[in-house]
Amino acid sequence: MSCTETLPDLDMFTQEEISVAADLLDSVAAMSADSSGVSRPAWSRKETEVLDHLTARAEAEGLAVWSDAVDNRVFSLPEDQGKPDYTLIGSHVDSVPVGGNFDGLAGVIAGLICLIHQRRKGTGFSRPVRVIAMRGEESAWFGPCYTASRALTGGLGADALAAKHKSDGRTLADHMADVGVDLGPVRAGTPLMDLTEIREYLELHIEQGPLLLGDDRAAAVVTGIRGNIRLKDIVARGEAGHSGAVPREYRRDPVMATAQLLSAMDALWADEVSEGTDLVMTTGMIGTDPTHHAMARIPESVSFSFEVRSQSPETLSRVEETFRDKVRAISDRTGVAFDLPDPIRNAPAALDEDVQRGLLDAMEHAGQKRYAMPSGGGHDAAVFANAGVRAGMVFVRSRGGSHNPAESMAPADMMAGASIFLAHITAND
Amino acid sequence: MSCTETLPDLDMFTQEEISVAADLLDSVAAMSADSSGVSRPAWSRKETEVLDHLTARAEAEGLAVWSDAVDNRVFSLPEDQGKPDYTLIGSHVDSVPVGGNFDGLAGVIAGLICLIHQRRKGTGFSRPVRVIAMRGEESAWFGPCYTASRALTGGLGADALAAKHKSDGRTLADHMADVGVDLGPVRAGTPLMDLTEIREYLELHIEQGPLLLGDDRAAAVVTGIRGNIRLKDIVARGEAGHSGAVPREYRRDPVMATAQLLSAMDALWADEVSEGTDLVMTTGMIGTDPTHHAMARIPESVSFSFEVRSQSPETLSRVEETFRDKVRAISDRTGVAFDLPDPIRNAPAALDEDVQRGLLDAMEHAGQKRYAMPSGGGHDAAVFANAGVRAGMVFVRSRGGSHNPAESMAPADMMAGASIFLAHITAND
Repeated sequence: MSCTETLPDLDMFTQEEISVAADLLDSVAAMSADSSGVSRPAWSRKETEVLDHLTARAEAEGLAVWSDAVDNRVFSLPEDQGKPDYTLIGSHVDSVPVGGNFDGLAGVIAGLICLIHQRRKGTGFSRPVRVIAMRGEESAWFGPCYTASRALTGGLGADALAAKHKSDGRTLADHMADVGVDLGPVRAGTPLMDLTEIREYLELHIEQGPLLLGDDRAAAVVTGIRGNIRLKDIVARGEAGHSGAVPREYRRDPVMATAQLLSAMDALWADEVSEGTDLVMTTGMIGTDPTHHAMARIPESVSFSFEVRSQSPETLSRVEETFRDKVRAISDRTGVAFDLPDPIRNAPAALDEDVQRGLLDAMEHAGQKRYAMPSGGGHDAAVFANAGVRAGMVFVRSRGGSHNPAESMAPADMMAGASIFLAHITAND
Repeated sequence: MSCTETLPDLDMFTQEEISVAADLLDSVAAMSADSSGVSRPAWSRKETEVLDHLTARAEAEGLAVWSDAVDNRVFSLPEDQGKPDYTLIGSHVDSVPVGGNFDGLAGVIAGLICLIHQRRKGTGFSRPVRVIAMRGEESAWFGPCYTASRALTGGLGADALAAKHKSDGRTLADHMADVGVDLGPVRAGTPLMDLTEIREYLELHIEQGPLLLGDDRAAAVVTGIRGNIRLKDIVARGEAGHSGAVPREYRRDPVMATAQLLSAMDALWADEVSEGTDLVMTTGMIGTDPTHHAMARIPESVSFSFEVRSQSPETLSRVEETFRDKVRAISDRTGVAFDLPDPIRNAPAALDEDVQRGLLDAMEHAGQKRYAMPSGGGHDAAVFANAGVRAGMVFVRSRGGSHNPAESMAPADMMAGASIFLAHITAND
């Protein structure tokens, strides 16, 4: 696919602006390079350095920059500072450990380049626009995700604040205090900004999937964000035995029982998809215990994860119920017990239909064909949407997966996404 | 089951002989105790100490004892030493690391107690009987199994002799030389004993399975020894991806493909068993890579083992062919590649029908009901059988599995098995 993709027309931005955006991406990659890829830990000094760097570049362009209640950075044209009913364009600057440069950062820079374009043009916006560069979106560092947007919208609970850093064991609250956050209002759970002043929240993100590559498109408008139900550590417990000496009718084999369960769920999934249901399911981890397993031994147990995602809360509930039914039936038939942990649940987020229509119109104004798709991954936009802010998203083509150093995005594709935003926020000008 | 089992009548042996047998089991357990269970490494000093201990006890009972070409110990009544056309009763004295006391040792002591009984009785055998206590049956130490019986029958190849010890890295040949084995004749691959002088080979072994416990029987005559086909490290290779962002039709998920494969083989197995086929299959090991896997990531690969056992070579071939067909079909359908290693093959061993009939008659003479079953595990008896020696086996009830410290056998059950041997070898007296 890599040799045949069609680069988008980018006549809304000047060549110099395209270079500025590419240079912003490169300069942040350089300052956060790890052994491979980049590492920008959530709520770290490195994250602050990146925000300071973006602040300096924005100020050099004549933009206004300020810190919010959790030391995210907010950018606007000088004349728009303080004006209500603003469009907020944002994403996050942190990354997973040894991750890619574009997950999060592309959304911040796409917003910034819209402000820089308008500032250089000198005409201003008819309706105010702000860009926000957020901290701490990735769950890889503390466990909880979307920590900055949840704090801003009043939804960062005590459990999340008490979550411990993967390396130093200090809590998220400790790390937030390190960067100067006043934790009192965060713990109180009230929004740290006036959400009613936000006209709409827009976020650009790399797709993290193969659809745009497969369809040879640079960008898409997102229709909704899949929620998920996650069972992290299911244990199927049977009975160990000699692989040659125990006949079938005496076995309680947890691997065979788990294979039956996953195969049955896979068949159900195929049926649902053929009927048009939005659904994905994944067992990302499975394993017998290496300290006990052997080729000639029926294992006593096997552990595995199971995750279901859908845009529809009804689908999530239905599939979870079916999963539990099948667990019971297979357990009855095989004598293998399945220990099911409490599920982690993340609700799907509806993206605003008016905003979607506006972004699709903007795609056309930017010279791109209308194209819409769901988001499989979760994003800060889901937090704003579930807090009652009208939200919209744009995806841009990426390759090499995400959350790893091979993650890759052409700056031209990011600019195609930024063009949609620019066309949208200047639609009435 | 443990409280209701029926202990066998043992009126062929005196109470004192039953005590001698139990004391032999206990004394060997004591001298080879590990942190838990016992460890009697193949071709080790400890193994030699056990053989020396059995030698001293046998000599104290007035038996003749000598070493063979690989320093196994051979026992007989003094008057039978050197006589051809003998019945050979044997098993092995080594154990797996931190294993049970009875796997192997019970077969040696069952033979010895027959000799001790007849020596104490003073009547001798009408046809000569020898007992052999062998070394190195377990594969846990070097990889190859049945090393002593394969050496005796001329079948211990160069690959096995070059296999390295799990701990010290020295070869099996090095360890055999340590105990005084002349390796020239072993390497030459000619039998180290005159196999035509053996009238029949008999081996008693713990069952290592649940059938005798389930049927409340102390012992059984073995009908044949299952062969096996083993694929140790199959790797299913798909494509990694974000668990939310990759739709079903774009996935190449190795875990779902493997679940389909194992589930299909399990269904085939159920059909075969319902038609009376002797067949077991086991995936003892499965795992995604813990350094890469995550709940929210489609794994790029999963590794697993697959083993099939049957008494029928035709069944083994047919199931292997079906397995390969299903691998191809699932690979075509899912885009997941399965890397299949070269199979390890162990042929089934036919136990001699005349010997089986004789042992079943002997069961009746010993006051037990006729009962026959296949052997799931491999044993030295298979080596003698495949070398053209008429062979027979008796299983005795055991619990707690095998190859672990929980392995358990009542000495009375071992004596029930020994009664079958005693009735058989004195049938014409």
